[in-house]
Amino acid sequence: MGKKIRIGMAGCGVVGGGVIELLSRNAGLIERRLGTVPEVTRIAVRHPDRVRTLSEAARNATFTTDPLALVDDPEVDLVVEVMGGLEPAGSLLRRALEAGKPVVTANKALLAEQGTALLDLAEQRHTDLYFEAAVAGGIPIIRVLREGLSADRVLRLRGIVNGTSNYILSRMSREGMSFEEALTAAQAAGFAEADPTLDVGGGDAAHKLAILASLAFGVHVDLSRIPTVGITDISAGDHDIAQGFGYVIKHLARAATTESGELELSVEPMLVAKESGLANIHGAMNAIEVESLGLGSSLLAGPGAGSLPTAMSVVSDVIDVSRNLQAGAQGRVPPRAYPTDAMEGASIARRDDAWARAYLRFEVEDRPGVLGFLATRLGEESVSIERMVQRRGAGDPEHRASVVMLTHRANLGAVTRALRTVSERKDLVFSAKALRIESSDSP
Amino acid sequence: MGKKIRIGMAGCGVVGGGVIELLSRNAGLIERRLGTVPEVTRIAVRHPDRVRTLSEAARNATFTTDPLALVDDPEVDLVVEVMGGLEPAGSLLRRALEAGKPVVTANKALLAEQGTALLDLAEQRHTDLYFEAAVAGGIPIIRVLREGLSADRVLRLRGIVNGTSNYILSRMSREGMSFEEALTAAQAAGFAEADPTLDVGGGDAAHKLAILASLAFGVHVDLSRIPTVGITDISAGDHDIAQGFGYVIKHLARAATTESGELELSVEPMLVAKESGLANIHGAMNAIEVESLGLGSSLLAGPGAGSLPTAMSVVSDVIDVSRNLQAGAQGRVPPRAYPTDAMEGASIARRDDAWARAYLRFEVEDRPGVLGFLATRLGEESVSIERMVQRRGAGDPEHRASVVMLTHRANLGAVTRALRTVSERKDLVFSAKALRIESSDSP
Repeated sequence: MGKKIRIGMAGCGVVGGGVIELLSRNAGLIERRLGTVPEVTRIAVRHPDRVRTLSEAARNATFTTDPLALVDDPEVDLVVEVMGGLEPAGSLLRRALEAGKPVVTANKALLAEQGTALLDLAEQRHTDLYFEAAVAGGIPIIRVLREGLSADRVLRLRGIVNGTSNYILSRMSREGMSFEEALTAAQAAGFAEADPTLDVGGGDAAHKLAILASLAFGVHVDLSRIPTVGITDISAGDHDIAQGFGYVIKHLARAATTESGELELSVEPMLVAKESGLANIHGAMNAIEVESLGLGSSLLAGPGAGSLPTAMSVVSDVIDVSRNLQAGAQGRVPPRAYPTDAMEGASIARRDDAWARAYLRFEVEDRPGVLGFLATRLGEESVSIERMVQRRGAGDPEHRASVVMLTHRANLGAVTRALRTVSERKDLVFSAKALRIESSDSP
Repeated sequence: MGKKIRIGMAGCGVVGGGVIELLSRNAGLIERRLGTVPEVTRIAVRHPDRVRTLSEAARNATFTTDPLALVDDPEVDLVVEVMGGLEPAGSLLRRALEAGKPVVTANKALLAEQGTALLDLAEQRHTDLYFEAAVAGGIPIIRVLREGLSADRVLRLRGIVNGTSNYILSRMSREGMSFEEALTAAQAAGFAEADPTLDVGGGDAAHKLAILASLAFGVHVDLSRIPTVGITDISAGDHDIAQGFGYVIKHLARAATTESGELELSVEPMLVAKESGLANIHGAMNAIEVESLGLGSSLLAGPGAGSLPTAMSVVSDVIDVSRNLQAGAQGRVPPRAYPTDAMEGASIARRDDAWARAYLRFEVEDRPGVLGFLATRLGEESVSIERMVQRRGAGDPEHRASVVMLTHRANLGAVTRALRTVSERKDLVFSAKALRIESSDSP
């Protein structure tokens, strides 16, 4: 019989309700594995009268409208924060950690903004801050980064961490849908919010990348330093052309160490080789590929969202923290991730300094000399072309054509400059875009 | 500054040497994350004089020829067993756990045979038995099963857990090699042993499945109860035909709960849908797909073998156990996996009671009536045919043909009986084989 664990829960919506439901439904096996079933004794919600009936694991819970009251309550051993938002969640976490009370949270926005400070605080107070549910709920990536790779050096990570964007790209790529059609389908399937900006604009993925990169490399990642491009500019034609070259377009969050010891970060649609692991992640699935010095490359894939996987990740964390409480071993795994020697004091690389192969697509006036013009401008910026294809779309007017080029490894700043110069000739070039091609080589 | 951790290591071959090397090379980051660098103070090997120079983490190590001496040594806090084999490794583990000394091991044969008893012993003595390196060294599957899924019910797991077999099948499938050519290539690439029986015969995969299934379902799995078929009977033609139907042939270790609450286990080559996650695991990679009630389906993929990933997994376990020692929290995660209510007292399903779709291939005399004969015999056993193709191989004699059938869901015992009856007509049927088709549906 293990020591009793009493949970104070802030927020009681879909995820919070799911946590209570899982603790009740799986009580038998949790009791066997933990020696007790954690009980929700206090719940902080704005409108206690609106909470629906709660199952067994919260049968004796009392309500409060003040989340901070959970911290001072002697009947609370562990705080579960599933209210979301920066405030009052931030104040709650600070107060709980300050008081040495362990916290389990699913709040990615808060962690992306203040994660480093909160983890430092947990470390100072020898307590636990767990947040598996905040990033890719169905994939135990936080556990793997904090514990599985505790003696290894991460070299690169890249992931599909937004289920909505991946759902949209998958349907465009596999069924030829337009972006708008695929977005409508995602909304109908319940994957996309009414306002999908945070998903398709890349903001949500950037939040997750900030959390992952700070854990993987032990350095603080400032959210505003992550170059972020969404998927709204990708057309069905891009998917089609990419496939012809043996690639799939995926929205990747990536972080990699550079040769000069900097950290390169980005969230953007990229071309990945058809037979790679990430290219075969379809629909609303998430996946994260980690490359480390000792283990090499590993891929973790699973459901990215959904209230059940998220609630399940919260419950796993609750059990882990409960074990620490029972053993008197709070802070057993250092909350703060420490950088390796190589990353100590590492700075974030400037986007324009990065090198990669690129996919360039130009909509041009279909007349002699255009290709020469494009090639000359690219050449002036030392962007060299590996492959080229010219084609006319089904509905395109007579005099228009698409020119697509795959470049050799090039400086991305130079690519941006070349596209800018090219676009100045509005009589010849109607649009120009560049997507990065992900290299499968080690960084 | 964390409490000092002193390791007694049994065995000092490639993996043991790798552990010492990693502890030395990553000393800086391990010290930051653990507060100390575990030191190897005692090494048990048969021939101490043959051990090559050891690096920093073992600079003060003394040698013994008696592994059991590690347990009684007060200078040893933690035993690392990387000697392999059933004895004296088994005695060493029993003695260490009996004395309450935590153990990290990479010994899959020992765990497959005696895992349940050893884990029970660790549990009784409130100590730790960690073994991430024993199964799919580069994939943190043990951690995920024991901790990430601690509040979930696993419904099914299936994996590619033998890198050699997957390397051979990949080359056959992608390059049209024969089994013999691919095996030679695997040996040349250093993936296959001189005697590859344990790999290509499925024995190694069965060891790993016994360990995984007992952790996932909390029940003891008797190695001898796992129906095991190797890959030696798969031809380049099978790969070719499977691909034509949209499948890839993979050697899978699988465990699933059945509707009647039994556990179904097998190691065998199977047809898996081309676009599934497991179909896209190439070369010597390993992958394990876990389906659980709460999280749904997740896939973990990574390097399956190699001394560096294996040593890295041992070191991760050493750090985990060290954290428990420092926090006085040995046995923090119950060593023994407890079954869910659904699996309590579950028995192993008989192979012949299983139902699945199947791929059947007959080499037959090419004359009228043969098809009718095959179809009649299958019909008599209620095996119904979904698709059929007849073809003649390039080098086949004039009068021979291959008949390939994909069946609807059928009882596998009935399939076996039908193949037996069919094979009795030696004048018509030269050979008959059946491969199971893996369903992507939930179990």
